[in-house]
Amino acid sequence: MNPINFKYVLKLLAYLVYILASSMSLPLIWLFIDPGKQQVEVADLKSLTLAFSGSIMISAFIGSLLRFLGRHAEPFLGKRESLLLVSLTWFIGAAISALPFWLWAHYNQLNTIEFYSYINCYFEGMSGLTTTGSTVLSDIEIIPSSLLLWRSLTHWLGGLGIVVIFVAILPEISGSKKQLFHTESSGIDADGSSVSVGEKARKLILIYLSLSLLQMLLMFIIDSDIKAIDVIVHTFSTISSGGFSNYNASAGALTYPIQMIIACFMLLAGVNFSIYHKILMGQVKESWHNPELRLYLFITLVAFLFILQNIFGSHYDTTKGVATSSSALVHAMHAFFQTASLQTGTGFATVNFDQWSTFSKSLIVMLMLIGGCGGSTCGGIKVIRILGMFKLVFLEIQKSFRPSIVKTIKIGGKSTNDRQNIAILSFIILFLVLIGLSSLLIIFLEQNISGVSALTATLASISNVGPGLDEVGAIANYSWFSPLSKMILSILMVVGRLEIFAVVVLFLPKFWIGK
Amino acid sequence: MNPINFKYVLKLLAYLVYILASSMSLPLIWLFIDPGKQQVEVADLKSLTLAFSGSIMISAFIGSLLRFLGRHAEPFLGKRESLLLVSLTWFIGAAISALPFWLWAHYNQLNTIEFYSYINCYFEGMSGLTTTGSTVLSDIEIIPSSLLLWRSLTHWLGGLGIVVIFVAILPEISGSKKQLFHTESSGIDADGSSVSVGEKARKLILIYLSLSLLQMLLMFIIDSDIKAIDVIVHTFSTISSGGFSNYNASAGALTYPIQMIIACFMLLAGVNFSIYHKILMGQVKESWHNPELRLYLFITLVAFLFILQNIFGSHYDTTKGVATSSSALVHAMHAFFQTASLQTGTGFATVNFDQWSTFSKSLIVMLMLIGGCGGSTCGGIKVIRILGMFKLVFLEIQKSFRPSIVKTIKIGGKSTNDRQNIAILSFIILFLVLIGLSSLLIIFLEQNISGVSALTATLASISNVGPGLDEVGAIANYSWFSPLSKMILSILMVVGRLEIFAVVVLFLPKFWIGK
Repeated sequence: MNPINFKYVLKLLAYLVYILASSMSLPLIWLFIDPGKQQVEVADLKSLTLAFSGSIMISAFIGSLLRFLGRHAEPFLGKRESLLLVSLTWFIGAAISALPFWLWAHYNQLNTIEFYSYINCYFEGMSGLTTTGSTVLSDIEIIPSSLLLWRSLTHWLGGLGIVVIFVAILPEISGSKKQLFHTESSGIDADGSSVSVGEKARKLILIYLSLSLLQMLLMFIIDSDIKAIDVIVHTFSTISSGGFSNYNASAGALTYPIQMIIACFMLLAGVNFSIYHKILMGQVKESWHNPELRLYLFITLVAFLFILQNIFGSHYDTTKGVATSSSALVHAMHAFFQTASLQTGTGFATVNFDQWSTFSKSLIVMLMLIGGCGGSTCGGIKVIRILGMFKLVFLEIQKSFRPSIVKTIKIGGKSTNDRQNIAILSFIILFLVLIGLSSLLIIFLEQNISGVSALTATLASISNVGPGLDEVGAIANYSWFSPLSKMILSILMVVGRLEIFAVVVLFLPKFWIGK
Repeated sequence: MNPINFKYVLKLLAYLVYILASSMSLPLIWLFIDPGKQQVEVADLKSLTLAFSGSIMISAFIGSLLRFLGRHAEPFLGKRESLLLVSLTWFIGAAISALPFWLWAHYNQLNTIEFYSYINCYFEGMSGLTTTGSTVLSDIEIIPSSLLLWRSLTHWLGGLGIVVIFVAILPEISGSKKQLFHTESSGIDADGSSVSVGEKARKLILIYLSLSLLQMLLMFIIDSDIKAIDVIVHTFSTISSGGFSNYNASAGALTYPIQMIIACFMLLAGVNFSIYHKILMGQVKESWHNPELRLYLFITLVAFLFILQNIFGSHYDTTKGVATSSSALVHAMHAFFQTASLQTGTGFATVNFDQWSTFSKSLIVMLMLIGGCGGSTCGGIKVIRILGMFKLVFLEIQKSFRPSIVKTIKIGGKSTNDRQNIAILSFIILFLVLIGLSSLLIIFLEQNISGVSALTATLASISNVGPGLDEVGAIANYSWFSPLSKMILSILMVVGRLEIFAVVVLFLPKFWIGK
């Protein structure tokens, strides 16, 4: 193989940095127009302005540097360049996203706030971009809302997939768009339409935008007294399956009607986006018969019913720390919200589900592992692979007494071949092996961590969920991990977001030497 | 497909019952010749004689009934008949093995002893035959040693595989021997020799016998004061990777030199038996280069070193309940013994490893999952599949940047095809899915069980290990589970022992209706 075309990778990375830098102007503008500005923020105006404009300048400088290094680059993007580019966008993206947090904390000399350490800011940036939603903050509400807006905006940008933005708006890489698109896109691409990749990306963005606007609109209609910042932050974190809130009590700080809207939109964000495209094309009936969609809704329903049955009549607190009411409706709303949140990997919480029974917590862990549909903003193994896995295993069981069986399985209406089947099974196994080995590593690094904390922290990172159980539970946070553990968890977030292979190859010498 | 030939299955099952019935004469004879008979046993002589002879008579009756039902059977054994026969041998075998325990407890009206309940005896019989080694007994030492001998003898018979005995000694089923043999035998059959299946089975028995005799001999040589019953019980439980001891403190009740002999023979029993065959044929060098053997020893070594490093200087008790000495040698012996015991799924313990750190316990859980080599007496996923899995996943990762790669993987010197690869991966996934779903079921059934207890109880059952962690830890037992949970765990033991498919098919309607 040829050597890797590093220069072109660097040149394209510059665009990413520019996109992030321009996005930072949004919270900067918000700073001045926010109608519900807090008192603390008014006093803080100068440092926040400096933090954002400083970040924009630093990013602009880094972007220009990358562009300079990538000058005279041959516009060629092969398999390896795509993998490298896609992985690097997330690692460098997190470094850029961390800047406003860090500059603000340092300008104000806030050395008691977690953002004073850059590694914490990097973790938060990575958790944001990968739509994981785990935080290092022990007190979210002392952070100015413009920074919390930026935090949720990283979710919203990351949820779409940086590459989708690339493909949609950059004409330059036209020849390599398909290559790049498939390196990042999630799950099995069931959409066999012949539209161009650029067209596809633009449609995805349109659906994403529409869902976001619809959620905002509904939230304003249901509760006219709601603060604008609450609507924006929670919408960004919902549609991207992220999970950052601007309250310590997460979505539990909001009213029940608003919580239900969020729950419904979390579920909607977990559906394969090509389904929405089909519905828009008038193929409503066909969409409804989609086996992945059905299994996804079935899993949600079954988990909801089991959890409801299990928590009914038990005592647990809301995320505000008060005991929940014992009304059946309240139990049902909490069960529904938590099911939707943890299956889609959003990670919002309205109750401290760590107080639930072992059975409900085990169900939650399974939901976190399964995740939403392929081609959605969710993390996890994805429902389409679970479907394929069960079909394959069932076929394998049948073979033991009918050796002559040659039936193949169908996923999304198409027969898969043996190579694809091996790919599905390998993915699932690699996912589980990575969870196992990373948990072991975290347990080794963190002397007094409980097994459940280590396992769920790892799972919540690779599945891009956010909270786990026990020491990383619904009302806990990730600040207490050592810097090395935080780096490992950050890498796992990218591994999960890019569906493993793009990141894992970087650890293979063969990838670099090209032999 | 034709209807299942039930009659012939019943007829062959009769032989199994006869084999078990005749094996019961061994503890019966022991009862009279035991040189170190306990006082309690002398007083109990009558009830024990009645328990064993009663069991033999009941078995003889059941055997004759099965033979009668299977009269005029056509001697045809297809795929489905083999699967059914192999599964049923274990379920019926456990029922027969349970008889002496139950009759003894009932004759003496010992309603405070766990054996008073038949379901407990069934669990113990299944745990014995499948070489799991989990017990319902809270106090082993009040049980007469002839019953404990029978308990270990079920290990020894089960370790060999009932089918191997069938194939070796019954001429009747000659035509179907190969079919049957491959239904039960473990892992991937790396032995491509052209010897007949009957010949192979006889060689396996010979190796099994030789290893057993060698261990007994060494134990007597090292410690001339050792009781005969200790040697026999522990040898039976070692070579079969079972784990039943005649002491509450398990192997911790024995001296360190004896413990080390047991540890070495546990490891030896975890090696693929075809390796011994090759060594006997003079292929020593080739055997040493066997990749599965090397990986097996490598995993043992790495786990041993990590555990040693981790427990060094920490405080934990022996199974006798006294603090361990802090000498490096003692730590090393405990680390080595526990590593060998849990990887091979024997399940003996010399220390209460539940007091070890989370890291060491996590390593133990991984060892339990991996298990020993294919074609050994161990349970678990087996090293050969772990090897295949890593090769496949590694190939899959490489494909992401070298799509044109068409390399296949080799396991045991032979290239595998896609179908075989899918079988390996499906097996591993099914193994993990069964652990996950069964744990969830156990958590649902047992209100106050901890997640760790449920998960490790399930894992210890399907991997045929015996003890797990927490409430089923090294010094705990399984008596407190509800009868339904005990049945589920018993089924899991057979599922693990028969490598899943033979049992799982029985739950498919398609298997029975034959369409």
